[in-house]
Amino acid sequence: MLKRRKIVPGESPGLLKFPANAPNEPPVITLIEYCADSLEEKTHANCDELLTHINNDLVSWINIDGWGDLSVLRQLGERFNLHPLALEDVVNAGQRPKVEQYDDYLFIVAQMLYLDKKGEIEVEQLSMFLGKTFLITLQEEGSFDVFEPVRQRIRSAKGRIRKAGTDYLAYALIDSIIDHYYPVLESIGSEIDAIEDELIDKPLARPVGSLHGHKRTLTQIRRMVWPMRDVTNLLLHEEPGLIRPETKIYLRDCYDHSVQLMDLVESYRDVLSGLTEVHISSIGLRTNEIMRVLTVISSVFIPLTFIAGVYGMNFAHMPELAHPYGYPACLLLMLIVAIGQLIYFKKRHWL
Amino acid sequence: MLKRRKIVPGESPGLLKFPANAPNEPPVITLIEYCADSLEEKTHANCDELLTHINNDLVSWINIDGWGDLSVLRQLGERFNLHPLALEDVVNAGQRPKVEQYDDYLFIVAQMLYLDKKGEIEVEQLSMFLGKTFLITLQEEGSFDVFEPVRQRIRSAKGRIRKAGTDYLAYALIDSIIDHYYPVLESIGSEIDAIEDELIDKPLARPVGSLHGHKRTLTQIRRMVWPMRDVTNLLLHEEPGLIRPETKIYLRDCYDHSVQLMDLVESYRDVLSGLTEVHISSIGLRTNEIMRVLTVISSVFIPLTFIAGVYGMNFAHMPELAHPYGYPACLLLMLIVAIGQLIYFKKRHWL
Amino acid sequence: MLKRRKIVPGESPGLLKFPANAPNEPPVITLIEYCADSLEEKTHANCDELLTHINNDLVSWINIDGWGDLSVLRQLGERFNLHPLALEDVVNAGQRPKVEQYDDYLFIVAQMLYLDKKGEIEVEQLSMFLGKTFLITLQEEGSFDVFEPVRQRIRSAKGRIRKAGTDYLAYALIDSIIDHYYPVLESIGSEIDAIEDELIDKPLARPVGSLHGHKRTLTQIRRMVWPMRDVTNLLLHEEPGLIRPETKIYLRDCYDHSVQLMDLVESYRDVLSGLTEVHISSIGLRTNEIMRVLTVISSVFIPLTFIAGVYGMNFAHMPELAHPYGYPACLLLMLIVAIGQLIYFKKRHWL
Amino acid sequence: MLKRRKIVPGESPGLLKFPANAPNEPPVITLIEYCADSLEEKTHANCDELLTHINNDLVSWINIDGWGDLSVLRQLGERFNLHPLALEDVVNAGQRPKVEQYDDYLFIVAQMLYLDKKGEIEVEQLSMFLGKTFLITLQEEGSFDVFEPVRQRIRSAKGRIRKAGTDYLAYALIDSIIDHYYPVLESIGSEIDAIEDELIDKPLARPVGSLHGHKRTLTQIRRMVWPMRDVTNLLLHEEPGLIRPETKIYLRDCYDHSVQLMDLVESYRDVLSGLTEVHISSIGLRTNEIMRVLTVISSVFIPLTFIAGVYGMNFAHMPELAHPYGYPACLLLMLIVAIGQLIYFKKRHWL
Amino acid sequence: MLKRRKIVPGESPGLLKFPANAPNEPPVITLIEYCADSLEEKTHANCDELLTHINNDLVSWINIDGWGDLSVLRQLGERFNLHPLALEDVVNAGQRPKVEQYDDYLFIVAQMLYLDKKGEIEVEQLSMFLGKTFLITLQEEGSFDVFEPVRQRIRSAKGRIRKAGTDYLAYALIDSIIDHYYPVLESIGSEIDAIEDELIDKPLARPVGSLHGHKRTLTQIRRMVWPMRDVTNLLLHEEPGLIRPETKIYLRDCYDHSVQLMDLVESYRDVLSGLTEVHISSIGLRTNEIMRVLTVISSVFIPLTFIAGVYGMNFAHMPELAHPYGYPACLLLMLIVAIGQLIYFKKRHWL
Repeated sequence: MLKRRKIVPGESPGLLKFPANAPNEPPVITLIEYCADSLEEKTHANCDELLTHINNDLVSWINIDGWGDLSVLRQLGERFNLHPLALEDVVNAGQRPKVEQYDDYLFIVAQMLYLDKKGEIEVEQLSMFLGKTFLITLQEEGSFDVFEPVRQRIRSAKGRIRKAGTDYLAYALIDSIIDHYYPVLESIGSEIDAIEDELIDKPLARPVGSLHGHKRTLTQIRRMVWPMRDVTNLLLHEEPGLIRPETKIYLRDCYDHSVQLMDLVESYRDVLSGLTEVHISSIGLRTNEIMRVLTVISSVFIPLTFIAGVYGMNFAHMPELAHPYGYPACLLLMLIVAIGQLIYFKKRHWL
Repeated sequence: MLKRRKIVPGESPGLLKFPANAPNEPPVITLIEYCADSLEEKTHANCDELLTHINNDLVSWINIDGWGDLSVLRQLGERFNLHPLALEDVVNAGQRPKVEQYDDYLFIVAQMLYLDKKGEIEVEQLSMFLGKTFLITLQEEGSFDVFEPVRQRIRSAKGRIRKAGTDYLAYALIDSIIDHYYPVLESIGSEIDAIEDELIDKPLARPVGSLHGHKRTLTQIRRMVWPMRDVTNLLLHEEPGLIRPETKIYLRDCYDHSVQLMDLVESYRDVLSGLTEVHISSIGLRTNEIMRVLTVISSVFIPLTFIAGVYGMNFAHMPELAHPYGYPACLLLMLIVAIGQLIYFKKRHWL
Repeated sequence: MLKRRKIVPGESPGLLKFPANAPNEPPVITLIEYCADSLEEKTHANCDELLTHINNDLVSWINIDGWGDLSVLRQLGERFNLHPLALEDVVNAGQRPKVEQYDDYLFIVAQMLYLDKKGEIEVEQLSMFLGKTFLITLQEEGSFDVFEPVRQRIRSAKGRIRKAGTDYLAYALIDSIIDHYYPVLESIGSEIDAIEDELIDKPLARPVGSLHGHKRTLTQIRRMVWPMRDVTNLLLHEEPGLIRPETKIYLRDCYDHSVQLMDLVESYRDVLSGLTEVHISSIGLRTNEIMRVLTVISSVFIPLTFIAGVYGMNFAHMPELAHPYGYPACLLLMLIVAIGQLIYFKKRHWL
Repeated sequence: MLKRRKIVPGESPGLLKFPANAPNEPPVITLIEYCADSLEEKTHANCDELLTHINNDLVSWINIDGWGDLSVLRQLGERFNLHPLALEDVVNAGQRPKVEQYDDYLFIVAQMLYLDKKGEIEVEQLSMFLGKTFLITLQEEGSFDVFEPVRQRIRSAKGRIRKAGTDYLAYALIDSIIDHYYPVLESIGSEIDAIEDELIDKPLARPVGSLHGHKRTLTQIRRMVWPMRDVTNLLLHEEPGLIRPETKIYLRDCYDHSVQLMDLVESYRDVLSGLTEVHISSIGLRTNEIMRVLTVISSVFIPLTFIAGVYGMNFAHMPELAHPYGYPACLLLMLIVAIGQLIYFKKRHWL
Repeated sequence: MLKRRKIVPGESPGLLKFPANAPNEPPVITLIEYCADSLEEKTHANCDELLTHINNDLVSWINIDGWGDLSVLRQLGERFNLHPLALEDVVNAGQRPKVEQYDDYLFIVAQMLYLDKKGEIEVEQLSMFLGKTFLITLQEEGSFDVFEPVRQRIRSAKGRIRKAGTDYLAYALIDSIIDHYYPVLESIGSEIDAIEDELIDKPLARPVGSLHGHKRTLTQIRRMVWPMRDVTNLLLHEEPGLIRPETKIYLRDCYDHSVQLMDLVESYRDVLSGLTEVHISSIGLRTNEIMRVLTVISSVFIPLTFIAGVYGMNFAHMPELAHPYGYPACLLLMLIVAIGQLIYFKKRHWL
């Protein structure tokens, strides 16, 4: 699920190389600049154009989708003094969510999780550079846009967003990313519920693989949510002062949500473990039941067949055979044996 | 069990929206104001009326059941300077129990757990704003009232409650919430005991599902009790001085109870895990027993049937058949084979 | 095993109420007062008499067994300024072992564990108030006396006890309580050893229930030993100076013992888990063995019976039947088939 | 997998003894000295020659492959004041990765992990002494060279390496070691994926052993990766100042990678545990299925065979036998019995 | 394995009592006194003689094997001011490894582990009093001497030992104790490897008991190694200055080894858990295989036997019987049925 960068051991760190399997399309560069009173939103054709437009008195949100020939990244890196290692992490998807503190900015990596149109879970890495007056967000593909609602809030000037700085904008984006985890987990939750119902009704409808599949998915999501919690926690206790105290109250809310997500993931994992046990004991119970039927039928008829076999023997001197009541007596004997066995099994609660 | 708010990703935080599945009835607003010498208790029709009645020299306990058109919450928020994020958490049920410190007050969220009339476990969120002179408690439905005993204590002026401040009142309410967990856990405990007895008597009476069900319930209760312990612990070590040292001695008692609850939940979970193992090995034992019966009966009769089959063959030259003692000799042979087998099985302790 | 108080949710805290299922006998009040040179030991009829006898210059050990109409507790509470919450915990058995610090004294709760005459494990709560010059110990029933050896040491003036203060006396009592855990754990240990031997000899003698029972008992003992370790540790690091440094060296010994107890409990639990696995795989092995016997016998005889069946058919034209060597040839064929099968099973190590 | 030194208990510590199973070839001594402007790379025949060539103004990287008669180690130890215990750890392979701080240098031990030509996992210990102006790297065999890419970077003067000091060189080597773990884990990962697919298609293709083998391998890798994370973390927080702040930014990247490795190892272990469960329940399901077939066939034919047996008996007076419709009636009876059974099994979902 | 002292609850602490099951032989008292230039080694008949010989300017190592009438211990206790509680722990074997700090000395308890001549694991407690100028070592039996190599080093004046103080001597002894754990663990390791090979070759050779036995042994060793690690760690961070900084470098090596031991123990436990799983699933696989053979043979022959049974019936009117091709046709039918079944089983991969 999580794409992982192909590592070339021993290579020089901070080298910007175009990742092998990334889509090679020209980057889409968007700049939104705003303060309480003004707002400008524009898509730029290239980075030079973008850089001339940036106004240090406003909140500048630069969003980049895709990295073409990487020159955009290099130009941004130079202009904003971004560390080559951070830029390398931007390009190499599959990073663990993290916060790294550099001199003038924070570098934040998060993994966005969402359901695509076919209901499959998709992951995409979002990288963020948070400075005093700028916020740069970068993602490989623009196919999934978790930021549209935030843009709408900026446009409509609703809530605090237009009055606050880059830190609040960063919060709003992280909050949106975290909120997008819920629908994914809810869809897994309802699938687990369905499996649960099925397991209790028809225990052998073979959901072994699906139980395992969901467990595996949850393990992967867990590896994204745990560090996400650390990210919010680190931002909450960040020191140099890029994040204002009033924004930290909002980040506390984010932290809360990530803890709730962890709770959800852990309890789903618990339920899946329980279901595996239910499944294993259901199989045992089923086998037991089948064996019981086999045993009862075999045990009843095998002795009867033996009796029939005896009187099917061709010995010359078998007095019973000639006796006029031999046949009914034999049938009676069989009946008694059969009933005796059934009573025995009834007593043992096998019937 | 735990209702969870439906998250709309990317929405503006602190927006008060009426939750989709909440009961839409007018809120019931009650104000109890007291000091050591006086007591006034009144239900108010709307929030304006309430706010004019509040006396800052007394302890004012405002209780709200249900939130009608949310205007009550907005008015309270303005009057007491409550943070929009906290109000959002009030409305969106299913929060993790927590304490949040704001400038003038503490915001406390707890989950009440109780058995309804049908013996089913119900959960309801209680939110609390604890200020120097006021305590606001809010819950979605007034259907379950864990606070009546506390109100009685205020009315009858028994104990310390009338002499103490809002902090003691908050303690009394939290204590009452925690105490209400005990009957729920005791009912689960006695059901587990019943399953345990049943498992040892009739191991295959199929309680797989019920074991799993109880485990799931306990997992959910655990997710409420663990943070409840943190809540009491945080209140115990709260700094700004909203909670007096003499009240902290009482909160220590609360903390103790929440630790006991955790102990209970964990040991029930332990017992359930043990019972699952007992169940699985019981199934194995049962299958084993059934197989033993099948094996003994088959092994005894199959060779006998074979012998009978041999003498049932129609070969022209079978000297034994003509022999006068052929038949009894054959029966004797069968008897010897059967007894030999039974001795063998006896030796192997299969009989 | 552990009696738990019945909680009435929402009740006023610190209310002394006679517990429902407690034995209602008059309390036995004993006072032992000593210093290095003198010793007085007396049983008092009531609390007034006791209180007039207390000499603040000596070490006063007040022991109360049972609480009659609770007036003794109330009088003691007043005289020594004991907190109502502590007194409530004294009366409500089933507390977690703990230490609570009050202004002038420490309140210590411990659970005594012992084997009664029938070899069953009994638990009783001991509460202790440790002041500068007094030590009050309280227990519901005087049926089990873990303190007699300590009293003997006081009487005989052996060791340090008569020269030391109340802190050393408290240590001596706690040490005695902890030492009484050992015989209980040893008895469980030897039962586990017995089960282990039995499991390896006769794996199916059905000890599922007993394994589970011991596991459950150990879970409960664990819940008493863990906090007991915390109690000794807290006393070791107690600050206000009720416990002298030279006594702390002795408490370190206590702490050591409680850690050893934990080690014991944990390793017994480990062994029990291992035995459950041994049990489950023994059942599997047994079933396997039974199946092997069934399979070998069935597989050998079923084809033979089929051959016999073929030559028992009544077709008019079956040339083999008339042949003079038909019968021996047929027997030979059967022998070859049987031997072939046996060789096959031998090769597969099924015989 | 991990070679472990043979310990001779009680021996004098810091004794340099040639390890029993080490390859006894003359050491290969290479010295690379560089600064931003100059570079000298030379292989020396012996240690005396090497030591005369060292220039304290340049970064001196001494690499030793193999230890011949150990005299090289002794000479280096004397020249650079290396502690005998550290030298002992150099020679005795199989150490846990660690960092030890000595007065003038850091001693770092790491385990290199790589796939040999046959695709098998090999481990080799690398020891490193990091001083202000020198870096000594030692390994038993030169068969696997993880450092070549770093040497290339030094030669080509690409990146920061020529401008930075010994600390950056040490970082570059550690980074290369850590990066070499990825291909190993990826190969394990793809084998696990293959097992997973196989398990779901043909659950009984007997991969028990292979699951266990991979688990064991991962346990061992885990024992190398966990302490590797500690190594990078310790270097990150090293105090005396051998590592410059700008290098620490790069080490943070290393730390990140080691955490990612841990994540990978742990999630592979998770998946393997899950697959073991899948395997066990698949076996159960398979057995169940086989039993079902046996039961259905046996249950259908055993009663029919019994009926045939009855009419094969040779009683003189069996009126049905003589009846002209006896035979078809009998066949009809058999058909009815068979169909009845099949309906019964259909209902139970056994067909 | 670990002998545990018999506790008499409530007894006076620090009472020296001869342990019930200890060997009652006269103690062997050895004194080794040395400095860089001189060495005296002597066995003394009794403690008085010993005490007159002690020279405070030298390093005095007193070794006591066995405690006769305990008078030696009492005399040593008086002379060196040893705490009665420490002496009690010396006599009562089965203590947890620990370090206790007293005013003038450290009291160290360790458990020695070794293989006796029959290859069985033996444990013996070693107690140590480490003072500025003296080191007293005590053990119950002198049967196993882990210290001989250290004595040799003192005699031969090799290494640092003669130049260093008591702290280095203590280190040398602890190091020797820890080194002796390796052969024990290696022997367990090779037994586990043997079981592993056997399990994969002949999965049912019934090693259930042995797996469990090894697990139990490892649990016990773990209980000795974990605290041993704490002992070395505590010595490493000991404050009052009995241990010199240069010795601490050596203790760091000890600490390293104890961590390696923990690693070994934990990974063996991991492997054993894995093998238990392998064993359980092997049993399942085996049962499955056996069932398959039974099912195939039964399913093929039971219908054939039924056909034979039909034509063995004695109905008067069975036209097939009289038909000249009846017999071959019947045999052909049987062949077709058998081949049909075999194809079916082949398809299901049961053959």
